[in-house]
Amino acid sequence: MLGEGTPKVAIMMGSPNDREQLDAGIQLLEEFGVDHEVNVLSAHRNPNQVAEYVDAAEGRGIQVFICAAGLAAHLAGAVAARSTLPVIGIPVQGGALNGLDALLATVQMPRGTPVATMAIGKHGAVNAALLALQILGLQDGDIKAKLKQKKEEAGGK
Amino acid sequence: MLGEGTPKVAIMMGSPNDREQLDAGIQLLEEFGVDHEVNVLSAHRNPNQVAEYVDAAEGRGIQVFICAAGLAAHLAGAVAARSTLPVIGIPVQGGALNGLDALLATVQMPRGTPVATMAIGKHGAVNAALLALQILGLQDGDIKAKLKQKKEEAGGK
Amino acid sequence: MLGEGTPKVAIMMGSPNDREQLDAGIQLLEEFGVDHEVNVLSAHRNPNQVAEYVDAAEGRGIQVFICAAGLAAHLAGAVAARSTLPVIGIPVQGGALNGLDALLATVQMPRGTPVATMAIGKHGAVNAALLALQILGLQDGDIKAKLKQKKEEAGGK
Amino acid sequence: MLGEGTPKVAIMMGSPNDREQLDAGIQLLEEFGVDHEVNVLSAHRNPNQVAEYVDAAEGRGIQVFICAAGLAAHLAGAVAARSTLPVIGIPVQGGALNGLDALLATVQMPRGTPVATMAIGKHGAVNAALLALQILGLQDGDIKAKLKQKKEEAGGK
Amino acid sequence: MLGEGTPKVAIMMGSPNDREQLDAGIQLLEEFGVDHEVNVLSAHRNPNQVAEYVDAAEGRGIQVFICAAGLAAHLAGAVAARSTLPVIGIPVQGGALNGLDALLATVQMPRGTPVATMAIGKHGAVNAALLALQILGLQDGDIKAKLKQKKEEAGGK
Amino acid sequence: MLGEGTPKVAIMMGSPNDREQLDAGIQLLEEFGVDHEVNVLSAHRNPNQVAEYVDAAEGRGIQVFICAAGLAAHLAGAVAARSTLPVIGIPVQGGALNGLDALLATVQMPRGTPVATMAIGKHGAVNAALLALQILGLQDGDIKAKLKQKKEEAGGK
Amino acid sequence: MLGEGTPKVAIMMGSPNDREQLDAGIQLLEEFGVDHEVNVLSAHRNPNQVAEYVDAAEGRGIQVFICAAGLAAHLAGAVAARSTLPVIGIPVQGGALNGLDALLATVQMPRGTPVATMAIGKHGAVNAALLALQILGLQDGDIKAKLKQKKEEAGGK
Amino acid sequence: MLGEGTPKVAIMMGSPNDREQLDAGIQLLEEFGVDHEVNVLSAHRNPNQVAEYVDAAEGRGIQVFICAAGLAAHLAGAVAARSTLPVIGIPVQGGALNGLDALLATVQMPRGTPVATMAIGKHGAVNAALLALQILGLQDGDIKAKLKQKKEEAGGK
Repeated sequence: MLGEGTPKVAIMMGSPNDREQLDAGIQLLEEFGVDHEVNVLSAHRNPNQVAEYVDAAEGRGIQVFICAAGLAAHLAGAVAARSTLPVIGIPVQGGALNGLDALLATVQMPRGTPVATMAIGKHGAVNAALLALQILGLQDGDIKAKLKQKKEEAGGK
Repeated sequence: MLGEGTPKVAIMMGSPNDREQLDAGIQLLEEFGVDHEVNVLSAHRNPNQVAEYVDAAEGRGIQVFICAAGLAAHLAGAVAARSTLPVIGIPVQGGALNGLDALLATVQMPRGTPVATMAIGKHGAVNAALLALQILGLQDGDIKAKLKQKKEEAGGK
Repeated sequence: MLGEGTPKVAIMMGSPNDREQLDAGIQLLEEFGVDHEVNVLSAHRNPNQVAEYVDAAEGRGIQVFICAAGLAAHLAGAVAARSTLPVIGIPVQGGALNGLDALLATVQMPRGTPVATMAIGKHGAVNAALLALQILGLQDGDIKAKLKQKKEEAGGK
Repeated sequence: MLGEGTPKVAIMMGSPNDREQLDAGIQLLEEFGVDHEVNVLSAHRNPNQVAEYVDAAEGRGIQVFICAAGLAAHLAGAVAARSTLPVIGIPVQGGALNGLDALLATVQMPRGTPVATMAIGKHGAVNAALLALQILGLQDGDIKAKLKQKKEEAGGK
Repeated sequence: MLGEGTPKVAIMMGSPNDREQLDAGIQLLEEFGVDHEVNVLSAHRNPNQVAEYVDAAEGRGIQVFICAAGLAAHLAGAVAARSTLPVIGIPVQGGALNGLDALLATVQMPRGTPVATMAIGKHGAVNAALLALQILGLQDGDIKAKLKQKKEEAGGK
Repeated sequence: MLGEGTPKVAIMMGSPNDREQLDAGIQLLEEFGVDHEVNVLSAHRNPNQVAEYVDAAEGRGIQVFICAAGLAAHLAGAVAARSTLPVIGIPVQGGALNGLDALLATVQMPRGTPVATMAIGKHGAVNAALLALQILGLQDGDIKAKLKQKKEEAGGK
Repeated sequence: MLGEGTPKVAIMMGSPNDREQLDAGIQLLEEFGVDHEVNVLSAHRNPNQVAEYVDAAEGRGIQVFICAAGLAAHLAGAVAARSTLPVIGIPVQGGALNGLDALLATVQMPRGTPVATMAIGKHGAVNAALLALQILGLQDGDIKAKLKQKKEEAGGK
Repeated sequence: MLGEGTPKVAIMMGSPNDREQLDAGIQLLEEFGVDHEVNVLSAHRNPNQVAEYVDAAEGRGIQVFICAAGLAAHLAGAVAARSTLPVIGIPVQGGALNGLDALLATVQMPRGTPVATMAIGKHGAVNAALLALQILGLQDGDIKAKLKQKKEEAGGK
């Protein structure tokens, strides 16, 4: 699951079932050649592992977190509570309320702990990767150039 | 904030502003003479303190947690993630969605981490105390007797 | 439907169709060796039977109720109205609103009559069983030990 | 609270606080000279009293129930569960969700137990009285005539 | 579509597609031997036919209307606007919002024009028929007796 | 209430209480010098008057209807059911659901009967007037020129 | 995609996937012989193309825009921001919230920029075409006559 | 409105009324000494100005956009459509739906155009500033250090 270089983007998901909704986003990071790692870590089943992972992440070179969770989605908030790195949240589609619960549990964060929340489901996963690339692109001319090229190809603006 | 005896009920709230919604519930515990303690601890501002507090609680004699939080309310879930004691959640009323976000973020817990969720706001706070008393009453004949008396007074059933 | 010993957990559902959503929760009780009984009793079709059953339950040794109902889900509230035992409510998924109605009808109880509400559907049913075990575990070291072991296996915390 | 003649309409409310939302509806019954009685009886605080009251009502001459309750509003459903008389439900406005919970808890009744649900709050209370009068008007020419006169005055149709 | 005797219950639906959701309700009226008629008449496509039909209905012996419509469901309200007979509304399940729009458009009637609103979809259709029978049963001992018998069979109360 | 010339825009509202939400929209028509008339006509209290008014409107020179109503807002739909003129609907803010019911009851029209729905409340009323002016501006160069001038003044585009 | 004459109606959609929901509406324009053109132009992928297209449209003879978009549907608003022609918005059904997001993002326009919003999905698309025809029919006797004939055929009013 | 140095953060709001909800966020940027500029620019009233401003921003040194808008909030999306810089969206509280519409219109962006969405209202504004600081802190050791210090002060983690 780990990329070959030092990973810059840490992708976390609450359940292995969430993986399928994240695939297109992960592929986008690969298309841009951005090293990343993917872990299944639940804020509710693995709180200590989440804490250890997040606390060590910045020292390992991680620059952005992408966190996907469904239902009462606490993962992104739990990561944001422990880090001053940008945290991007993807509300996973599914369950009886189809992700509306996950959206509110991800986005309605109290002041002091921001989570950059994306749309519910696959759209949000692609956009999470794009936002991570936009953030990394502020320091990396190659990423920036590819983002601009991709945007032009998509619509000719 | 600490009761005089060994506290059995741990009341946690995410913000000192939540206190006013909890008062009637806390008074009910006092009326029953149940030792309790009240702490302001946020899952987002104080994640390590929450973890330490919860991890030590059972050893100190705590039997039930009551957790109140608003917005993307993660506190009850964060406690439930770390304990096998019963955790009661109160969605705090307020914010742009008036507590609907807190309700969904508290109740829609994934399998493995139950939170006994109450109604939004003051009604929920009183009922959280009552549920804690019902749980303690399974082992404590005095509490059980008072609960029955109170129920009869309220409505003559 | 009855367990072999004296049942401690009374599971009630409003309709036999709800059974499938409850199965994983019931299996969990069986896995823990906790005696329980399961009854289909509707607050709307069988109000007197519900009343008789609940009024007799505590004398028979029942310590916790688990009540599952859908739509305008009144069952848990009707049980809570008649008992000082803890009542756990599961909003059943289904109908035009997919359980949002059942969630609100279960959780928004007025002060005086708590229902420990779980997530909509199967997640909620498993968590209802876990909460019942957590409550029983306060008096039963075997259950407590198994809960701790299971929690560690699930996530290594 | 009792009318002077044999009451035909039984008005029940879950809390004395609901009275103010019912007043215009009650006045309409008085304007039509229809005997009625008003009781504060909660499905959650007074389940046995509700049962006794409802079971005796038809024998006393009651022909229609009007039930007002808020939050997880179970009163109308609890009455409908015990009677074959028409039951009209008024979701009381208030609480964190302002009556949306009461609306769903009143209207989403499973098959077999109808509740004739009105709009949330004061509009619903007036219409509950009107519907009761329309039902009584099927057998009572005076009421029918007054209803027709009132409708014409309101709008000239 | 017409019953053999003088119809007492007028069933109206906004679209022929709604028929399938109404079938169990219509069967219940047939089981009770209550004459009824069923018409597809839309408040939006056939406003004059609706007006003519409703204005003539009371003179023809109709005592209760049952109106089913989906989306921005105006049919029951349009009938209630023209009649002092009881009008029962069934929000039809379907469309992008699955009947939540139809529920609100049916139940949130302003004061002066009551619609006795049932649950969304098939549950509501059965209950609409039951409510109509309860209303007719106030004057018809046979219907009343059958309703009581049916209620006892369903649950033994 | 009538303008001095032959009115081209017919403004209807379900209740005189809705007037205050409409004022800014009406002032805009006056600012443009467009003749209009304002009537309080309820689809539920005055169905025949609504029918007569709408049926005569086109012959009198009306080119656009603007209809404001709250709660289960049927007015715009009732007008659209009777006319092939454009009908603009304004969901009135208010009631327990603050206009969400009126929005859904206005916008979710079945195929065949369009209502051009605006935002809830005062924003919607101003925009209803603007849309009416845009429609009239297709045939009236003065209105068109003023609309363009106003748009430029507002933002310099 | 272009009609043969000078197009009067410009249909825009945010994604080629939206086409299927628009088909019945487009067929209605063809049935009426109204020249139109259909373009896939996204407010988010092609903002400059949208601007150029809209800015040139009035000069080319376009009289009405029909804009369909899903999710955070900005297309109709982006067009309305640049034009004084009437803009009709269709919230596309789909995504995790099935079009409720698109409805609110289309209809809740601030004062100054009206969007004539239709129902979510296919119903809305047919009605968008009808509203465009009603607007064109104010100046075109053939369209007006066909609209009246079609309305009579649909329901005999 | 311009800061004294070369601004790195561009704050845009759709209406001057939104300013009050943004103040605490703006103060946070000032507390960190981060140059920023604040403009009132509406996607609906000033689309060309928005386009010009956004197209020039990156060349001027802007690194992050913060966009606040209410109702059918398109501003953040309109900016994201034109830039490969990170765009943070704040749904403004207010209007009949109190910001739920703005939340959905901001967060439910289709793939290709991410908006980092914050909570509705003042909480979201503070968090937008924090997220901007976290992004800038990836390249700026002073900001990073202050963020860590502030986080420790807030909760001692």
